[in-house]
Amino acid sequence: MTSKSRTQTTFAPPVMEARRWLEGVEFPADRPLINVSQAAPIDPPPAPLIAAMGEALADPATHLYGPVLGMPELRTELAQHWSAHYGANVAAENIAITSGCNQAFAACISALCGEGDEVLLPTPWYFNHKMWLDMSGVTTVPLPTDDELLPQVATAASLITSRTRAIVLVSPNNPGGKEYPAEILRGFFDLARAHGIKLIVDETYKDFDSRSGAPHDLLNAPEGRDTLIQLYSFSKAYRLTGHRVGAIIADEALLPEVEKFLDTVTICATQLGQRAALWGLRNLGQWVAGERDEILDRRAAIADNMPRLEAKGWKLLGLGAYFAYLEHPFAESSAQLAPKLVAEAGVLTLPGTMFMPETDPRGARQFRFAFANVNRAEIGTLFGRLEALDWPVACQGTREGATALASKGLAQ
Amino acid sequence: MTSKSRTQTTFAPPVMEARRWLEGVEFPADRPLINVSQAAPIDPPPAPLIAAMGEALADPATHLYGPVLGMPELRTELAQHWSAHYGANVAAENIAITSGCNQAFAACISALCGEGDEVLLPTPWYFNHKMWLDMSGVTTVPLPTDDELLPQVATAASLITSRTRAIVLVSPNNPGGKEYPAEILRGFFDLARAHGIKLIVDETYKDFDSRSGAPHDLLNAPEGRDTLIQLYSFSKAYRLTGHRVGAIIADEALLPEVEKFLDTVTICATQLGQRAALWGLRNLGQWVAGERDEILDRRAAIADNMPRLEAKGWKLLGLGAYFAYLEHPFAESSAQLAPKLVAEAGVLTLPGTMFMPETDPRGARQFRFAFANVNRAEIGTLFGRLEALDWPVACQGTREGATALASKGLAQ
Repeated sequence: MTSKSRTQTTFAPPVMEARRWLEGVEFPADRPLINVSQAAPIDPPPAPLIAAMGEALADPATHLYGPVLGMPELRTELAQHWSAHYGANVAAENIAITSGCNQAFAACISALCGEGDEVLLPTPWYFNHKMWLDMSGVTTVPLPTDDELLPQVATAASLITSRTRAIVLVSPNNPGGKEYPAEILRGFFDLARAHGIKLIVDETYKDFDSRSGAPHDLLNAPEGRDTLIQLYSFSKAYRLTGHRVGAIIADEALLPEVEKFLDTVTICATQLGQRAALWGLRNLGQWVAGERDEILDRRAAIADNMPRLEAKGWKLLGLGAYFAYLEHPFAESSAQLAPKLVAEAGVLTLPGTMFMPETDPRGARQFRFAFANVNRAEIGTLFGRLEALDWPVACQGTREGATALASKGLAQ
Repeated sequence: MTSKSRTQTTFAPPVMEARRWLEGVEFPADRPLINVSQAAPIDPPPAPLIAAMGEALADPATHLYGPVLGMPELRTELAQHWSAHYGANVAAENIAITSGCNQAFAACISALCGEGDEVLLPTPWYFNHKMWLDMSGVTTVPLPTDDELLPQVATAASLITSRTRAIVLVSPNNPGGKEYPAEILRGFFDLARAHGIKLIVDETYKDFDSRSGAPHDLLNAPEGRDTLIQLYSFSKAYRLTGHRVGAIIADEALLPEVEKFLDTVTICATQLGQRAALWGLRNLGQWVAGERDEILDRRAAIADNMPRLEAKGWKLLGLGAYFAYLEHPFAESSAQLAPKLVAEAGVLTLPGTMFMPETDPRGARQFRFAFANVNRAEIGTLFGRLEALDWPVACQGTREGATALASKGLAQ
């Protein structure tokens, strides 16, 4: 019997699966599809940034290979930006530019882990993290979050073994929408440092954090600078998803290992995308602040609308970044309900089962709504459609039983 | 003791190492550096293609995520191009668009191989192939080429085990510059098919093959369509290296596995790069033919100049695609001589040791010259500098002994 290939150890991309639910479904003009499935802006970048990209095309270097770890100017600019935001000293030598933030994660895991190593990942998780750990031969150790969707240091401590290489946190969280308190991040940092393992914090949504200032002070830890690895994406802040630019901010010693991975897998991030990111860092600070205000207004619109759903048995578990993470009241699993939502309510969203191990029954009760592309009015419409659903509800005991069982069974 | 991470199992990127040899070296204006180290065009794409990219920036979709396997129009266009070139039926469903050809290779290996599997790689090899196999936990089985730098089917047959998943060929070859005869490719195809393994043929340099028409007829094999996987790059033909666009042409059944890898590592190739590749396929056929003529003239210039070096004990082992692969006459290893070539001759090139396992002594006697960026006059200058080297030469016996030893020891 042939053994499994790396990709055969993991599941198919959830976003592509969700797109297939749209096939053959017609949406009337007066009741268009509301797509809250993907965490990506659908509007183009601001016009001055597009103009700057047009000018960059005239530079021959835009069309050539560049350094594997990224354009020196972009590394320097991001280091300055990062230093200012976190009140810390970050240098260009701490920065690697990647082809998007997924690749930033992939490169770090390959730099840190070998076959059979372990990584702690809070549940619900970001599915591409789970997929890459699978493909890397790394065992994902699920770290169940508490009732507030927050990971607990004590739980994590009990799951660390001699094979553990890293703990991965996403804050603000995808899919949960939680902004992790600085104390929790500090607790995980201290835990990682005590065990000589890495704390990877994916900060893709940092520009949309509702708190002002630095979300943590980990870069100012007098020791243990080599404990923390931060991941970042230029895709959301500047609407550059189609150009694939992300970053790793880490101890200098890690970057030669990261360089091996990036060189072998893509050689370098695209030069045009890097020039666009550089232009954004230099010119779009104020514009991004306005984007954040708009996202925070949409977040407020979700909160304003929640009572309508709570009256129907829904529950808001997390709300922040681009995401509202909700518990539904229905008898069927979210995995079955998600395609029905497309057909019956004209709503495309991802079920909690896509963010959970199969062994965790909580996913069947949950949905993620990525609200960045729906304005206040559309959010009202969305909630109206959800409110109108008359599907059979689960009995109270079943729901609470599943949740309690999951928390108990998985937290030990 | 901590086990090795994936990246720690392999070596640092050779191209980045070679760039470091330039640090601190000054090149006089009348004796500029001749850089024949990297197989990449240094001129920008043709002006109409740059103009088309500028127009594409006005399309909002250029800035968004696209389908993981690539733009449908590009997949369709490449399928038509491929069908015409190979006289075969290739459909859009056989095509995946990748972030460059390195990623095409990485995705295929991850789709085919698991930990401890084996892949046959002719030596000298393309170092990024070796690096990815290392990082994937796949054992690279070196397949020594013969005196003509051609891999032999019989040798390969003796190296196949129950863990072998694929044979990888690069034709026209990097680094060896050999255009593999159709019969050799057919022999490897039949061998792979007989063993139920894959034949991966990296055809990055297909547009610069000196032979006209299809280089092989493997796509017309009545059976075994699932045996062949072809890799391609848009970087060389249209000078799009900085935009990272490549492709996989394979059996439809492989692509869902490839899709998992691409989604997790980069989500999609850049939309602008894909639009540029599409425009190139539709409009630059004649222009690429002119580029090929120029490359073939440079290749002829190498051949014309070889007698000067042959008189000094050099030997031409392979010449084609972007590469001349030469055996030098000196006593020291090419690994030591390459940095000296920078300092003493103003020539940056890569030593054969970068394309060989350490156990194969032939690499120490060899250099790869990537000649795509040097015109006929500069090739004359390059050969003049090499001819003038007065380094100590190895005694004849040593050189032949090493080569014979290598062929004997490694071919068994």
